[in-house]
Amino acid sequence: MSNPNAVDADLVIHASWIIPATEDNLVHRDACLAVADGKILGICSSHAADGHFRAGKTLHLDGQVLIPGLINTHGHAAMTLFRGIADDLPLQTWLEQHIWPLEAQFVSEDFVYQGTQLAIAEMIRSGTTCFADMYFFPEASARAATEAGMRVQLAAPVIDFPNPWSANADEGIFKTTQLHDAWRNSELVSTAFGPHAPYSVADGPLKRIAVLAEELDLPIHMHVHETALEVAQAVRDLGQRPIKRLYDLGLLSPRLICVHATQLNEQDIELLKESGAHVAHCPESNLKLASGFCPVDTLLTRGINVCLGTDGAASNNDLDMFSEMRSAALLAKAVSGDASALPAYRALRMATLDGARALGLDRMTGSLEPGKCADIVAVRLDELNTVPVHNPVSQLVYSTQASQVSHVWVNGKQLLNDGELTSINRRNLLEIARHWQDTLGTRYDTAKQ
Amino acid sequence: MSNPNAVDADLVIHASWIIPATEDNLVHRDACLAVADGKILGICSSHAADGHFRAGKTLHLDGQVLIPGLINTHGHAAMTLFRGIADDLPLQTWLEQHIWPLEAQFVSEDFVYQGTQLAIAEMIRSGTTCFADMYFFPEASARAATEAGMRVQLAAPVIDFPNPWSANADEGIFKTTQLHDAWRNSELVSTAFGPHAPYSVADGPLKRIAVLAEELDLPIHMHVHETALEVAQAVRDLGQRPIKRLYDLGLLSPRLICVHATQLNEQDIELLKESGAHVAHCPESNLKLASGFCPVDTLLTRGINVCLGTDGAASNNDLDMFSEMRSAALLAKAVSGDASALPAYRALRMATLDGARALGLDRMTGSLEPGKCADIVAVRLDELNTVPVHNPVSQLVYSTQASQVSHVWVNGKQLLNDGELTSINRRNLLEIARHWQDTLGTRYDTAKQ
Repeated sequence: MSNPNAVDADLVIHASWIIPATEDNLVHRDACLAVADGKILGICSSHAADGHFRAGKTLHLDGQVLIPGLINTHGHAAMTLFRGIADDLPLQTWLEQHIWPLEAQFVSEDFVYQGTQLAIAEMIRSGTTCFADMYFFPEASARAATEAGMRVQLAAPVIDFPNPWSANADEGIFKTTQLHDAWRNSELVSTAFGPHAPYSVADGPLKRIAVLAEELDLPIHMHVHETALEVAQAVRDLGQRPIKRLYDLGLLSPRLICVHATQLNEQDIELLKESGAHVAHCPESNLKLASGFCPVDTLLTRGINVCLGTDGAASNNDLDMFSEMRSAALLAKAVSGDASALPAYRALRMATLDGARALGLDRMTGSLEPGKCADIVAVRLDELNTVPVHNPVSQLVYSTQASQVSHVWVNGKQLLNDGELTSINRRNLLEIARHWQDTLGTRYDTAKQ
Repeated sequence: MSNPNAVDADLVIHASWIIPATEDNLVHRDACLAVADGKILGICSSHAADGHFRAGKTLHLDGQVLIPGLINTHGHAAMTLFRGIADDLPLQTWLEQHIWPLEAQFVSEDFVYQGTQLAIAEMIRSGTTCFADMYFFPEASARAATEAGMRVQLAAPVIDFPNPWSANADEGIFKTTQLHDAWRNSELVSTAFGPHAPYSVADGPLKRIAVLAEELDLPIHMHVHETALEVAQAVRDLGQRPIKRLYDLGLLSPRLICVHATQLNEQDIELLKESGAHVAHCPESNLKLASGFCPVDTLLTRGINVCLGTDGAASNNDLDMFSEMRSAALLAKAVSGDASALPAYRALRMATLDGARALGLDRMTGSLEPGKCADIVAVRLDELNTVPVHNPVSQLVYSTQASQVSHVWVNGKQLLNDGELTSINRRNLLEIARHWQDTLGTRYDTAKQ
């Protein structure tokens, strides 16, 4: 006996808590969320559901919490195939003696397609519904993402020197515009320029990117101030810090996502604030490579938008945004010396809405609000490590394991059902991983002798 | 057709990898481990199993790795019931306005028994087989541990001021000796003195503890140099740093486990080294309470034994030693500025053998070696977040979620079977957690008004 004023919904999900990740730090208790045509219709208390919605299908998730899908704003998905292959090494040794030679030998369109499939499966399983990716052969990543039903922003790499995907920066830029053309009508795939880093792209291509990004209305995604060495070398060779150089070149704007930003002085912070650029914080990668500490609390206090990324699995070594949220929330306190820095709700927003803002996708995703795409994650809190539930936001950020993610929807399409992938064959993927384990293991060991 | 020289084993476990966590950084591939009478008989390659062992029962764990049970060297188990109740607050506000009033109102023998049961269940589920615990009513914790088949070292609290368990330090000391007497023949329970911290125990009781610990052959477990404030106040009020005071009082010795140690100068480190005291590193708690950074790499370089603890769930907020290993390994690199600091195998040893050393239990547990108790954990590595397995130790430390723990044995008795607790009723525990969620939630909210 539904209310005549009720609206048709394809799906109504009831949960013990719904946390929309909006600015007001709201938590709904015993509430439901309705989905129609892949969009969020609305949220209301469970007992008022029939008055609001005529449900095609109803789901009851007792002891669970609904949150927006997590947004991983920086990574190199295909590098999942290198997970754990060269750990506990200084950054330059890691890159020059291990990662770059491996990439030169093994990275192909197939490698990227299969590695990205594995990464997407890991991300869906752990509650991520959108990821920004900077890697070679982005057209293969686009294919893997759309086949899996996953949302992705491809930061197509632009690098001055020859790499598996392009001979130089010009080719990288040209191929980025091609990629953008090919996917401009996709509901799931968006494109960004991915100039690799200030030290690997010259002024000429950077200026072209600034102009083209404006013309095509695209974000720019770049490693910036990852290490002290990078900044010191720039000062030595070019007479200025990289962020100042990007400012002078016209790249610093709300289009720019500065990844890492572990080395920031007052002038850098002022330029970031003035320009409206975003910072993609990758705490676990920065720790693992001993790159330094991003001053997250200072950036937030100054009103700079900070989002979260795992970086590639070769330097993390997983794509687990729950772990990354926890690391970010814990580390911000220690780095600022203030235990009240980056509280739990803010950390959750950093992993969702603030990520969508950085990617320019916040009208589409990042929070549970009417009209946005139904990018939704359900998490079981009735586990031994998350009871009692005095505060569900606190449990999500400080105690939840990614394996507690039960259901995932992207654009209203279900990609995870009670922990099982619905759009990807898990067994095939484990076989693919085994193939690359054998291939890389054998050939790489031989190469080292 | 077994070999006539083969030895009888109750259980032979075959796994894809066995990592004994010994000094030689050994990894066995496709190997088996035999157990008899609750002890480890030996390890050999799987294809040679029949020549070595006549197995009563055989288990094949393909895609899994065997490691020693993890040893959580510092916590307050019953505080699990306070998980998430007061987060993102400065240490003094957290303690004085939330934790201490809650403890005064709610902590009883029942609270400790039930809270410790919940903590033990969480620990078994996440691969911990031995924990050191400092909390009121340790006799209740001993009961919870023995009923569950869990190994525990009870650091019975000694505090000058009245608390739920004792009126003063003298009573705490007396009750500790009683506890020791009551459990001295237990296979699972050992006792330690738990003087709370230098600022909460006067010279007199500390001197008595030093003498009694020697006579009774017991460890001493103490919060030491947790915050800069603690050290500054000691210098202001007593004219010396706490570690120097402990040294003068005769407490600094291989019996002493210094918990936290985030504030160490060269003199402190020299005294720790000279005395052979241990450091229990609690990275996530130190980050969350913004206490500071323990200089782990420096301590290891100087030959000081460093072990790992989660601290209580009220300041972590879980008892997950996999997460703690990862945090320790990542943080040590960033704090030392050296990406090769605390490599994965060393982090695993810190969470196992080095913990056993600190607790004085290394002849009994901490590594997979013949003659030690069969405290064993099996972990599935064939999950989306841990393939490919280029390096199983790296996967365990940097990528594994605690939920991948499949089997746990303590003293040869199985406590976890394919993810299911065998000695504890999970459903009962979730009801207990719900009871305390309602009780604390309601009454605490009222108290705050």
